[in-house]
Amino acid sequence: MADAPLTPDRILEAAEEALRRYGPAKANVVDVARALNVSHGSVYRHFPSKAALRNAVVERWLARLSEPLGDIAAERGPAGDRLRRWLDGLSDSKQRMARDEPELFATYYRLALDSDEVVAAHVNALSAQLGEIIADGVGRGEFAVADPFRMGRAVFDATARFHNPAYLAEWGDPDIKSAYEGVWLLIRRGLGVPEK
Amino acid sequence: MADAPLTPDRILEAAEEALRRYGPAKANVVDVARALNVSHGSVYRHFPSKAALRNAVVERWLARLSEPLGDIAAERGPAGDRLRRWLDGLSDSKQRMARDEPELFATYYRLALDSDEVVAAHVNALSAQLGEIIADGVGRGEFAVADPFRMGRAVFDATARFHNPAYLAEWGDPDIKSAYEGVWLLIRRGLGVPEK
Repeated sequence: MADAPLTPDRILEAAEEALRRYGPAKANVVDVARALNVSHGSVYRHFPSKAALRNAVVERWLARLSEPLGDIAAERGPAGDRLRRWLDGLSDSKQRMARDEPELFATYYRLALDSDEVVAAHVNALSAQLGEIIADGVGRGEFAVADPFRMGRAVFDATARFHNPAYLAEWGDPDIKSAYEGVWLLIRRGLGVPEK
Repeated sequence: MADAPLTPDRILEAAEEALRRYGPAKANVVDVARALNVSHGSVYRHFPSKAALRNAVVERWLARLSEPLGDIAAERGPAGDRLRRWLDGLSDSKQRMARDEPELFATYYRLALDSDEVVAAHVNALSAQLGEIIADGVGRGEFAVADPFRMGRAVFDATARFHNPAYLAEWGDPDIKSAYEGVWLLIRRGLGVPEK
């Protein structure tokens, strides 16, 4: 390991490991450098500040969440079905991580709160994926909306309760599934799908 | 004042004043009793525990927020217009208080987090008001939905980003108004209003 070249990926892996071990308040660049057996100057050559490293860690975490969703957006097939799977995927992955690894989830969430621009780019990318699915649904005659990308953002915002960690405390509510189905019904109708 | 009979209302006013002054961590029943010039036993006769007093304070705060909305729900006239004014009223009153009296807002929010049942009743009452407006809209031929009260709850959940204090940190976002308009469009369509 010590002889492998020092890549941004190896630094980010070590940074994630340090965060897991020490938490966001205590983990620092020195821990990362020590774990990699390099000087902290070598780390700074790739990430010129603690903030740059934090942003990269958050970006990597969010990319792991959004990549499987991008695959769903890029599929072919009925758009209503893909939209539902996409929304399920986003909410499930967040809620599952919060339940299974609560400390790590809290750590990443705390870091994300300090990485506004990274989070904003992530939200824009996810909203655009929703926009793609909706636009595809319009093309297929499943949905009827004038501005699919605007609606993509609206669908993202309207489902915030189920995927935004600001709502973490409500994810254990017994009525959360029923609430989700209600919002899903509203969204389907909102995209022009006739009520069954 | 000292001679006025000790009513629940007077106790709640004194409790609110104590919260304003000392914050939720420090304010206690002794402060409330002292301000009213009564024994803390007299306070406990009306509110048998600190939790009971806290629940009543939260209930009173939430009632101040929901009463003007109840008036809008009970009006006559076009339901689409009332629905919009109701949603504006909820989001504006929360966002305004958070901006104008941030410490007091944080205090109430913190108390509300410990008063689950009071908050759940408030959310049910607000969702029912939305259900009434939507049912009225269905009767007037403005909306077309099968279950107005279920949709009332869905509209409440879909707009959470704009009125739930869990989202406080996002209320200053420059795009919040545009996001709100997007969700409003989705809701209108979701309730069966044709796209213009």
